[in-house]
Amino acid sequence: MFACDALSSVAYGTEETLRILVLAGAAGLAYTAPVGITIALLLVIVATSYRQTVMEYSSGGGAYVVSRDNLGTAPAYLAGAALLVDYVLTVAVSVAAGVAAITSAWPAVHDHCVALAVICVVVMMLVNLRSMRESAHVFAVPVYGFIGLMLFLVVFGLARYATGNLSATTAVVTRVPVLESLTFFLVLRAFSSGCAALTGIEAVANGVQAFRTPAGLNGARVMVLLASLLSVMFIGTTLLAHAIGVVPSEHETVLSQIGRVVFGDNAAYYMLQAATALILILAANTSFAGFPRLAAFMAQDGYLPRQLTNLGDRLVYSNGIVVLGVLAAALIALFGGQVTRLIPLYTVGVFTAFTLSQSGMVLHWYKQGTGGWRRKAIVNGIGASVTAVVLVVVVTTKFLHGAWIVCLIIPLMILGFRAIWWHYSDIASRLTLERASEVHPMRNLNLLLIGGMHKGTLQALQYIKSMHSPTRAIHVETQGEDTPRVLRLWRRWEHQIPLVVVPAPYRNITGPLLEYIHTVRQQEHYDIVTVVLPEFVVDTWWEALLHNHSALWLQIALRNVPGVAVLNMRYQV
Amino acid sequence: MFACDALSSVAYGTEETLRILVLAGAAGLAYTAPVGITIALLLVIVATSYRQTVMEYSSGGGAYVVSRDNLGTAPAYLAGAALLVDYVLTVAVSVAAGVAAITSAWPAVHDHCVALAVICVVVMMLVNLRSMRESAHVFAVPVYGFIGLMLFLVVFGLARYATGNLSATTAVVTRVPVLESLTFFLVLRAFSSGCAALTGIEAVANGVQAFRTPAGLNGARVMVLLASLLSVMFIGTTLLAHAIGVVPSEHETVLSQIGRVVFGDNAAYYMLQAATALILILAANTSFAGFPRLAAFMAQDGYLPRQLTNLGDRLVYSNGIVVLGVLAAALIALFGGQVTRLIPLYTVGVFTAFTLSQSGMVLHWYKQGTGGWRRKAIVNGIGASVTAVVLVVVVTTKFLHGAWIVCLIIPLMILGFRAIWWHYSDIASRLTLERASEVHPMRNLNLLLIGGMHKGTLQALQYIKSMHSPTRAIHVETQGEDTPRVLRLWRRWEHQIPLVVVPAPYRNITGPLLEYIHTVRQQEHYDIVTVVLPEFVVDTWWEALLHNHSALWLQIALRNVPGVAVLNMRYQV
Repeated sequence: MFACDALSSVAYGTEETLRILVLAGAAGLAYTAPVGITIALLLVIVATSYRQTVMEYSSGGGAYVVSRDNLGTAPAYLAGAALLVDYVLTVAVSVAAGVAAITSAWPAVHDHCVALAVICVVVMMLVNLRSMRESAHVFAVPVYGFIGLMLFLVVFGLARYATGNLSATTAVVTRVPVLESLTFFLVLRAFSSGCAALTGIEAVANGVQAFRTPAGLNGARVMVLLASLLSVMFIGTTLLAHAIGVVPSEHETVLSQIGRVVFGDNAAYYMLQAATALILILAANTSFAGFPRLAAFMAQDGYLPRQLTNLGDRLVYSNGIVVLGVLAAALIALFGGQVTRLIPLYTVGVFTAFTLSQSGMVLHWYKQGTGGWRRKAIVNGIGASVTAVVLVVVVTTKFLHGAWIVCLIIPLMILGFRAIWWHYSDIASRLTLERASEVHPMRNLNLLLIGGMHKGTLQALQYIKSMHSPTRAIHVETQGEDTPRVLRLWRRWEHQIPLVVVPAPYRNITGPLLEYIHTVRQQEHYDIVTVVLPEFVVDTWWEALLHNHSALWLQIALRNVPGVAVLNMRYQV
Repeated sequence: MFACDALSSVAYGTEETLRILVLAGAAGLAYTAPVGITIALLLVIVATSYRQTVMEYSSGGGAYVVSRDNLGTAPAYLAGAALLVDYVLTVAVSVAAGVAAITSAWPAVHDHCVALAVICVVVMMLVNLRSMRESAHVFAVPVYGFIGLMLFLVVFGLARYATGNLSATTAVVTRVPVLESLTFFLVLRAFSSGCAALTGIEAVANGVQAFRTPAGLNGARVMVLLASLLSVMFIGTTLLAHAIGVVPSEHETVLSQIGRVVFGDNAAYYMLQAATALILILAANTSFAGFPRLAAFMAQDGYLPRQLTNLGDRLVYSNGIVVLGVLAAALIALFGGQVTRLIPLYTVGVFTAFTLSQSGMVLHWYKQGTGGWRRKAIVNGIGASVTAVVLVVVVTTKFLHGAWIVCLIIPLMILGFRAIWWHYSDIASRLTLERASEVHPMRNLNLLLIGGMHKGTLQALQYIKSMHSPTRAIHVETQGEDTPRVLRLWRRWEHQIPLVVVPAPYRNITGPLLEYIHTVRQQEHYDIVTVVLPEFVVDTWWEALLHNHSALWLQIALRNVPGVAVLNMRYQV
């Protein structure tokens, strides 16, 4: 399952590198291969380092748990915020890229890409709400299909290139305008963009407990396998793109262009596009497992609303799934479904999480001090240093291109975590039984609200008399002409409970009722007043439309009044 | 105030006649004057007949009350439905025509006419919700302004025409294409359209109690005055349109064209347009008084939801105002804000109401049998006959142009009235105290829902002990690990009330709770179970977001369970 996330990033990693390099024209594109190889090298370093994390933290939780356990609260906040942002962006970027794969092969739907992407997210949300387990089986075919097709593409393409059989689309390359001069900064920007290809690594670390036991070991094996595959694919496509002279375009993805040239416009090409789209959209799905789980972790620690820990009857964190779906759909709509505009936001969070979790691992090995801790610490230390450098590069080169948004949102999220944590600990301290006094009954007055005299009123009286508690009836007089009749019938049917008539000159029941409650509590020293609201039960929804529902409105009005309890008594006659 | 409604119809009456006649080209336009004079004659007949209605039924309510009192339930249903539809259409047509007056003078906003019209309706709705009385003063200036300008237009225009000083825009007339042949049916259609000019008469009859006492006499006087003014304006503009050779256009109203030719493109013309727009939009306002009042009349009789009789604190029928505003805005949006498309729907209802109310008056005079009843009955009889004939003509000629919609909706509304009436009488018969038995207390069990053991739980216990009624506590076990702690603390703090633990294998509280209630009611013969839901009170809305609100969800789930009352107890610590 995690293969989707890890491998799918190859679908946009090359593309994003090219998009920047092309700004400098043909001279820029010459740097495609070196940048690609650097990124592949980075991938190997990070994967090696992460392999150790996965083996040690086999219960999942990724950077957040590692930071919390080893670095303390503040870095945990930061890692948590970065990861949450990244999960949302994984969905947004993967779905947008998946839709781009579709529109590349089928240009007719290009104008509807935002709508397509949003529909994708909603469908994914619903599938995940129904339960993740069932959907896991669906993954095998596209994953293996994609791996097979991509490897075939790379081998077949490079073979054709080696035999001089692959015609470079040089016509296109010569027409590339030079928009920016080829500076070191530009190459760094291209590198930053390409680093998006690494984003899938974190997904494996976060979701490691989903593997068969021994989870740690299996997770680590998968990690190495995926990193190798990813390196091959990334370098392969980068070289092919360079060989063919692909130029990024608004209407067709780089991978689609490579496929079209290598395979020709035939079934193999369309299979590649379909597999790419599927794997990307399924990659987004990993976030629907990861985000809710991380959110639940953080909610358990008191940093996020407690509702995120609610397991639904299908044993999924339903609230987290809905929150993720809504945020991702909003992001896609906001950025017009364009991968390029989303990438700068994406990479910042991923590399923040990388740096924190690996730094945490260094400390973890140091504290543990078992055999070979030095070697392990050095591996993670190298990983941490490299990703820290990349993080600085990404923030510097991408700040104006969207990274600033993440740099703004993450601190705000951290403030939010702190406020939420404070709220929960405040309540816990206020609710503690430590200094609580013994239970003594309160002084309560039942206040039965009487709208008119009818069979329902008699039922309410029967009911309230079963509580052997001081009771008074109250009639709020909105239409004066009714009162004499109500009083007459009251005397006929009820002899114990007194009836109070309160005038409502402004035809509003709430005001006079609240005033009466206030007076009673003050003058007669009641601790609490229970307002009993009898309500008629109707059979159908349209019949419900024919009634005033004053009980409901009153209940809402009385909701936040201290010293008032509301008793909803519904009668059927 | 009612002057707006009555007089404003002149702004579209002429136009709608011309729109049909122009289909037959120049030959058709020659019929403008005869059709116009026929409509003016009809106006005099209806106004004379209605003068008697207003004097007799000075408490208002119009056709509905007259039909109900004299013709019986079925005609009252029909009259009520026709009038309600008409009120909605008055708003839609008047506002659309008002906006057309604006866009005629200011073509730049022509594309936004639907949005402008909807905004108008919403503003009117809000003004009326704030109270009608204050807004009544606003009316004098546009009404007198419009009357003055229109009379001036007619006199000045005809004078210029008589002196040969008014250049007919013959260039336009000759270019009119003949789209349909000039048949008698076409002339009848033109007549039907022009009859929209009479729609204002009903408004005076419905709202007569708003006049100063003696309301009846004053109302009748106003009616005669308005009918005379309306006749003069209608005939005048029709003659002028004919003299100038105005051709209806999509972009400019007929009245605007006349004004532009007679006055020239100067301040007088813009004043005319402004006054027309204002009077039309204020005409729509009469419906905001009439519709809620009629709806309240009908709701009092049990034909419409009782909420429509609710007087707000500003003494207006707020619900009726909101319903009218929403329906009118929907209608405008649905018909693209075009007066011509709305007119066929409009006229059917008005003439149905005319015919019914005047037939009712004939019976009224007959039953009364006082002096001169014959003469009065004849006047109303003529009115009824004439409007009945017109109704047949309108339905026949306009059926395919939209009248079918009204012919479909009115029977559906009548079915709705019957269903509502049946519902209310059914409830009244079930609630009657006639065969009620004496009040005996029920057997009630209080069931206190315990989420965990904390200070709030102790408060809930203090509270429930004040009710000296059998009480049991229940803990629904969603997370098994909590239970031992809860049980231990319960034994420490509470010695009288037993605690029942119910397992919730699917992490859903509602199911096990409902099952327990069901068992208890069956086995222990309790009549009712009061579920006590303790809830924590938070201080701010964002803190509220951090809690599960299981009490709220449970309350919704328990809402329709028979034999269950819900007690909401909110604690502050």
